[in-house]
Amino acid sequence: MLSHLSRSLARSLSGCPSSSARLLPQNQGLGRSSGAAAVRAVSTSELFKDLSKIAGERQVTSNANDLRQHAKDESIHDAAEPQVVVYPKNKKQISEILKYCNKNRVPVIPFGAGSGLEGGTSAPTGGVAIDMQAFKKILRVNSEDFDCTVEAGVTWRTLNLSLRGQGLWFPVDPGADASLGGMCSTSASGTNAVRYGTMRENVLNLEVVLADGRIIHTGGVNSRARKSAAGYNLTNLFVGSEGTLGIITAATLRLHAVPEMQVSAVVHFGSPRGATDAVVEILQNAVPIARVEFMDELTVQACNAYSKTSISNKPTLLLEFNGSEAGVKEQVEAVRVICDDNGGTEFKWAENAEQRAHLWKARHAVLYATCAMWPNMKCYVTDVCVPISHLPDLLESTKADIEKSGVVGTIVGHVGDGNFHAMLLFDPNDPSSFAKVKALGDRMALRAIELDGTCTGEHGIGLGKKELLLKEHGEDCVSVMKAIKLTLDPNNILNPAKIFD
Amino acid sequence: MLSHLSRSLARSLSGCPSSSARLLPQNQGLGRSSGAAAVRAVSTSELFKDLSKIAGERQVTSNANDLRQHAKDESIHDAAEPQVVVYPKNKKQISEILKYCNKNRVPVIPFGAGSGLEGGTSAPTGGVAIDMQAFKKILRVNSEDFDCTVEAGVTWRTLNLSLRGQGLWFPVDPGADASLGGMCSTSASGTNAVRYGTMRENVLNLEVVLADGRIIHTGGVNSRARKSAAGYNLTNLFVGSEGTLGIITAATLRLHAVPEMQVSAVVHFGSPRGATDAVVEILQNAVPIARVEFMDELTVQACNAYSKTSISNKPTLLLEFNGSEAGVKEQVEAVRVICDDNGGTEFKWAENAEQRAHLWKARHAVLYATCAMWPNMKCYVTDVCVPISHLPDLLESTKADIEKSGVVGTIVGHVGDGNFHAMLLFDPNDPSSFAKVKALGDRMALRAIELDGTCTGEHGIGLGKKELLLKEHGEDCVSVMKAIKLTLDPNNILNPAKIFD
Repeated sequence: MLSHLSRSLARSLSGCPSSSARLLPQNQGLGRSSGAAAVRAVSTSELFKDLSKIAGERQVTSNANDLRQHAKDESIHDAAEPQVVVYPKNKKQISEILKYCNKNRVPVIPFGAGSGLEGGTSAPTGGVAIDMQAFKKILRVNSEDFDCTVEAGVTWRTLNLSLRGQGLWFPVDPGADASLGGMCSTSASGTNAVRYGTMRENVLNLEVVLADGRIIHTGGVNSRARKSAAGYNLTNLFVGSEGTLGIITAATLRLHAVPEMQVSAVVHFGSPRGATDAVVEILQNAVPIARVEFMDELTVQACNAYSKTSISNKPTLLLEFNGSEAGVKEQVEAVRVICDDNGGTEFKWAENAEQRAHLWKARHAVLYATCAMWPNMKCYVTDVCVPISHLPDLLESTKADIEKSGVVGTIVGHVGDGNFHAMLLFDPNDPSSFAKVKALGDRMALRAIELDGTCTGEHGIGLGKKELLLKEHGEDCVSVMKAIKLTLDPNNILNPAKIFD
Repeated sequence: MLSHLSRSLARSLSGCPSSSARLLPQNQGLGRSSGAAAVRAVSTSELFKDLSKIAGERQVTSNANDLRQHAKDESIHDAAEPQVVVYPKNKKQISEILKYCNKNRVPVIPFGAGSGLEGGTSAPTGGVAIDMQAFKKILRVNSEDFDCTVEAGVTWRTLNLSLRGQGLWFPVDPGADASLGGMCSTSASGTNAVRYGTMRENVLNLEVVLADGRIIHTGGVNSRARKSAAGYNLTNLFVGSEGTLGIITAATLRLHAVPEMQVSAVVHFGSPRGATDAVVEILQNAVPIARVEFMDELTVQACNAYSKTSISNKPTLLLEFNGSEAGVKEQVEAVRVICDDNGGTEFKWAENAEQRAHLWKARHAVLYATCAMWPNMKCYVTDVCVPISHLPDLLESTKADIEKSGVVGTIVGHVGDGNFHAMLLFDPNDPSSFAKVKALGDRMALRAIELDGTCTGEHGIGLGKKELLLKEHGEDCVSVMKAIKLTLDPNNILNPAKIFD
């Protein structure tokens, strides 16, 4: 049996929330289910024996550490353990595993980098975690066509490192170094979505193993076409399906040209509303800004402490401008005037590439920074997204609700999309503390839904937001989703209990 | 009974191919099915009586003209007539009609502007055509959020007219003045897709009546959020489903800012390869070009004759640059150099707004221009899309195949997406002539599939490309599409025989 500790070790060192073995006292997580008490369709020893025949004995484990590591992501959701973990070497093995599991009604939970935020890796009814770490080949880069095909276990940072020197990059950048398969599954986005779109706009084709073991290519067997009107858009059905419809083994992605010039800046405001009003105005003036991120004072404080930045302790926008020299100059001038008009002060440049890289590295680490600042607390992180005109109101009401609730919470977000995150801290030894942040997060999501928005812009539903999905989409719409799920996975083996029950 | 002749009259005047009552001798269309011979689930007189109770007698017709007009789109596919046409006034009536039709196994075929190109309006097993002409309200424009909600019968030109003066526009522009519901159904695109995306990227939410009469909002009951990770992406499942999964009654669309400056130009080349090589280079240099359209010599000739343009009779690119003054200047300089390097000559500007509008109006009318140039012939129009690097080869081999086959055909396309159209002329009185163009179109599609592309970039599958869909996606993938279809429409009442059998 192999030892597969590298990622969990890396997480321990990074101080990320999932590095502690169990995040909440038993029965205190969100989206808890009957979990350990569920009847196993097949005993663990049988599973071990049967899967070893398919994947090889060295690729299957029921070691307690492995099980624990694969149960949890970076969220506070109940991390129910699978019975075994398999490390398949190729899609043929995944196909055989799924055929076996489908026949024997064994749950299958795909595992990428474990960086999800809604409990997608939890195995509430046991079964098999499929670790995609062997799927790390970049299969093809078509630099002329601005596309590439990668195996599902490749992370976005690895992909971008390998593209260096080719004048190309893949812009979707969630905070963690997520796997691209996982990013497809959760419809991830990040700081660049305001300009370059989310996974939905950047996936051209997916290779997927279905519940019955068949392997399909959602966009056509070989297609890399930019657009297609051939049949149903299965690619975007699987993007965001959180492992409930099939296991993604490879993805064909759009790439983009590295801009001639990339310039970053920081600007401060007297209040969050000043900052968000400026963002609304920037977008309404159609400035093609590449990134516009908001951090509140507490986030800035955590960020300065953790990442050794020296950002003024005020509501802050991090900005990035991409384009030609003349284009960037125009954008900067326009944005500067808008920020001034909205009370922006201390407009400062990242003076060189290192400063720029440091700034964005710090931004990507704010979850870890928040956790590190309050080491005895746990962090419930949740996101919402609304039309940009409603952003100032929602952000202000959320901040007021945080204060009124007596909760410590930071707010940070991809405000150019109308998308922001609240990181709400609670005492893991005090159930009432957790109940308070959960209620607070739910109120924020309900307000977002009322304001023509969604209960999640990029984290997904997972275990944590099933009730909110129903509220947002209505029963008829969710019943359509469920009908599709049952059609493609009639035995409900694929990541059961996620998105809906 | 109302008279609903305005659109068909307009089409007659425009000289578009569907203005002739029957396009092909009986049994000569593509995708023919048992059509008129099919057993009707419910007799026409019963249908008339029952639907009159739901929609009102004045909203139901079985008048021969109405039936004929609703059977056909702008394609040469067999136009099998429905038994009745209904003009529902609101979504509640559509819901009641679908409940009735679902219970009685009556086919339902939605009808927008009738401008489709793959036979989507044909009723091979009879049933009810639902004409969406009453759905013409622009329900809401949120100029601050760059979105709007429209009823399905609004056309893209009407929407853009109503947005004038607000600094906003909707960029998806198929040649014909299609309805936005129809454009959602076929996943339409057009000349602006290279910069602004297709319908897939520009639809935020859809109101859909399901086969059983339930009404859902695919993106959430009220959501207009820019991005969402809440549940399955049903919006993009319905976009491109060609009326086979539900009837779209309203759509929430992304709008874009009217650019500060829009400049158009024309440039000529010694060969199609020179033109397409230039396009490949423009894209590889990441010039954010707004439009780049190819016309071959014959198309130019037809266009000059029909639209009174005076474009030199050579392989031609029509270009458009959007942006700020400085941005446009930069783009123009870059593109000019690239065109020069690839043998481009006579780079000419549209000197004012009228010239620019005339140029693009002429481009949008090339199908009508082609038909008008050969008035005794019929035109089979088909499209394919490949990764941009394969475009020069595919375009060249297609032109060679047209010549070798002794067929008259024009080639025109949204080459910035790798997408082009062949308009192949045939003698409607000579079956072998039609067989020849059909075989030619199929060979072009098969070559596109071999070159990592798709058999249709924007027209859809409809009646005409079912075999090609199977070739492109493989049986397992198409079986997934069929399974979803049967789940949402178990009685196969929604636009039967389209996409697959």
